[in-house]
Amino acid sequence: MSNLNTFHLLRACPKSKARAGELLTSHGMVPTPVFLPVASQATVKTLTPEEIKSIGMKMVLANTYHLYLRPGIDVIEKMGGLHEFMGWDGAILTDSGGYQIFSLAALRQVSNEGVVFRSHIDGSQHLLTPELAIQFQEALGADIIMVLDECPAHDVSQERAQVALRRTHDWAERCLKVHRRKGQALYAIVQGGIFPELRQQSAKYLTALDFPGYAVGGLSLGEPKKLTLAMIEETVALLPEHKPRYLMGVGSPEDIVAGVARGIDIFDSALPTRVARNGALFTRLGRVNIGNAAFARMEGPVEPGCGCYTCRTFSVAYLHHLFDRQELLAYRLATIHNLTFINNLMQEIRDTVLDGTFSAFQEHFLSKYQPTDEQVRLDQKQKWLKSKDLS
Amino acid sequence: MSNLNTFHLLRACPKSKARAGELLTSHGMVPTPVFLPVASQATVKTLTPEEIKSIGMKMVLANTYHLYLRPGIDVIEKMGGLHEFMGWDGAILTDSGGYQIFSLAALRQVSNEGVVFRSHIDGSQHLLTPELAIQFQEALGADIIMVLDECPAHDVSQERAQVALRRTHDWAERCLKVHRRKGQALYAIVQGGIFPELRQQSAKYLTALDFPGYAVGGLSLGEPKKLTLAMIEETVALLPEHKPRYLMGVGSPEDIVAGVARGIDIFDSALPTRVARNGALFTRLGRVNIGNAAFARMEGPVEPGCGCYTCRTFSVAYLHHLFDRQELLAYRLATIHNLTFINNLMQEIRDTVLDGTFSAFQEHFLSKYQPTDEQVRLDQKQKWLKSKDLS
Repeated sequence: MSNLNTFHLLRACPKSKARAGELLTSHGMVPTPVFLPVASQATVKTLTPEEIKSIGMKMVLANTYHLYLRPGIDVIEKMGGLHEFMGWDGAILTDSGGYQIFSLAALRQVSNEGVVFRSHIDGSQHLLTPELAIQFQEALGADIIMVLDECPAHDVSQERAQVALRRTHDWAERCLKVHRRKGQALYAIVQGGIFPELRQQSAKYLTALDFPGYAVGGLSLGEPKKLTLAMIEETVALLPEHKPRYLMGVGSPEDIVAGVARGIDIFDSALPTRVARNGALFTRLGRVNIGNAAFARMEGPVEPGCGCYTCRTFSVAYLHHLFDRQELLAYRLATIHNLTFINNLMQEIRDTVLDGTFSAFQEHFLSKYQPTDEQVRLDQKQKWLKSKDLS
Repeated sequence: MSNLNTFHLLRACPKSKARAGELLTSHGMVPTPVFLPVASQATVKTLTPEEIKSIGMKMVLANTYHLYLRPGIDVIEKMGGLHEFMGWDGAILTDSGGYQIFSLAALRQVSNEGVVFRSHIDGSQHLLTPELAIQFQEALGADIIMVLDECPAHDVSQERAQVALRRTHDWAERCLKVHRRKGQALYAIVQGGIFPELRQQSAKYLTALDFPGYAVGGLSLGEPKKLTLAMIEETVALLPEHKPRYLMGVGSPEDIVAGVARGIDIFDSALPTRVARNGALFTRLGRVNIGNAAFARMEGPVEPGCGCYTCRTFSVAYLHHLFDRQELLAYRLATIHNLTFINNLMQEIRDTVLDGTFSAFQEHFLSKYQPTDEQVRLDQKQKWLKSKDLS
């Protein structure tokens, strides 16, 4: 096997589980820890590929469920694959669609064979099996692809979680068995809900199958944050040191820092781009809501010292005005700012892991950054899940 | 007086009234004929100033009515004026707000003093007088500003149109009297509805006041196109040769070509950007609707040979997908294409006027370009006027 899609661990933090590394992909080297912006529909909402690149991002996340429904895997294959279709020559990771089927689709029927679901767009009926999930992802041609997994809600019983877990393991093996595409890495997904026993069982089982990377799935779905962190710890402790670890669906600044400190290398989340479109902009002190009347006459950038295009070019008052008038440029300028904030955060995290000062950085960052109130966060998440705008 | 905001006529077409020239402004030279994209709310919808510039556009149109209501003239003045506020160092023309008050605002009361109107946003009551229109536009600091005029509907009686015209003339004089700002040119607006007599009367009256430029207002409001063209001819015939002529609110490719052939130098319209957001893209053969199912699997650019960012980077199938998923990037990519199309058209018009081949170009262009059916066009216009999305 070539050295494509291998992971090099460069340094581990002496005081925490944080690590710095690099992922080699067919579309360039990706320094880790890394955050992937979400491009579910083959577009990071509002941005061109050039803008994503100029922010400094090297890998994006696209979604098999969404792309299968629209425009169709065959269309993207005909256009030369996903990179070509969306004009992005950096790395891509595709999720298998498991999570979307279990959160978005109407009327699911799961069997050992796979899952029958109805499209959330037009109600049409479809079957997804582990073998099809791999076939679709091979056709899309991402650099990293994911196994099909069953994702029960965070509040199911342990018995129900155990059944889903057995199926997830069986499906992971079937995915591994049929995956052929060169230069493309297939990652497993550790499940097990909020049950430490199941998490351990899953980590051990999948580790034995020797995947090139491991995701921690089924978290950040509405459970309390303390539990999320405990489950990450349980899982990561049993994952192999020399393979990348991917925490799915986590992307607030404070959660990323907490995830890195617990040994996570890869993150993805729609949060930074979604909240940007709602006018919530990241600063070192926490999120600010640009719609606030206090900003109507404010000169200077959103975050003094921020080098992003938005902060270099426009005043807070102008951004406030664009949001007030619901001008489309607003959503893009806010997205550029938030992704730059997150990318700079990842860079700083990596630099401090490399020079051995991550713990001090973490302490300093968290002493300044005011996280969004947990109840507000949970309510927003529920509202978002219900709205089915999961892209 | 300095040579800022002067107009140089470079060449006139031997077979038509078309002309090529240059407008010197405090923010650069603007070659004419020129089309101004609409930036009513201090943003050309979806685009950054850099994108407008890279398309090749040198002047944009902003709107005093909109900016007065939100964010407020005082806010923009505090931020250093309109150029600074919106990050645009090219030329700007501001409309006085007259047209918007008469089309957008609720409950107008016109008197000789001015017009009392209610905001279409929050119903608050405001007074606009000719003197205030100049005061606001001086504060915004555009390179070219417009007099306040009364704009009756296109179907009023001649008596009613005559009353409005008298007021428009009186207001134009009052605007001229109070305008002081250096490096800023104040243009008059010829009105008179669809009545040749009134158009002539207006052109003569305003020409005698010696404004540095003249607009033809109150057209393209729903009257048949034949009448529009006849009124342009009536008006232009009486305007001074050495001053720029601005046809307000006209911007379809076929209408621009017709306007140039009748002696117009400056055009503005929301049409190219508005139809772009609806998925209608300009090509040399006419508009195509990117939402059409026939485009779902089409490789290659929207317009082969088009050098715009959109056509250089993305396939028709990708654009179709973005529109289908209502992705925000869609509106921007379509806007870039349509404005590039119009800007290239203006350049070609100018080049052919300069080398004496405009009439051949006009014939060739119109033989290929399939205009949108007039009834469809009028219906769309009415729908748009009713929706009050006049930005």
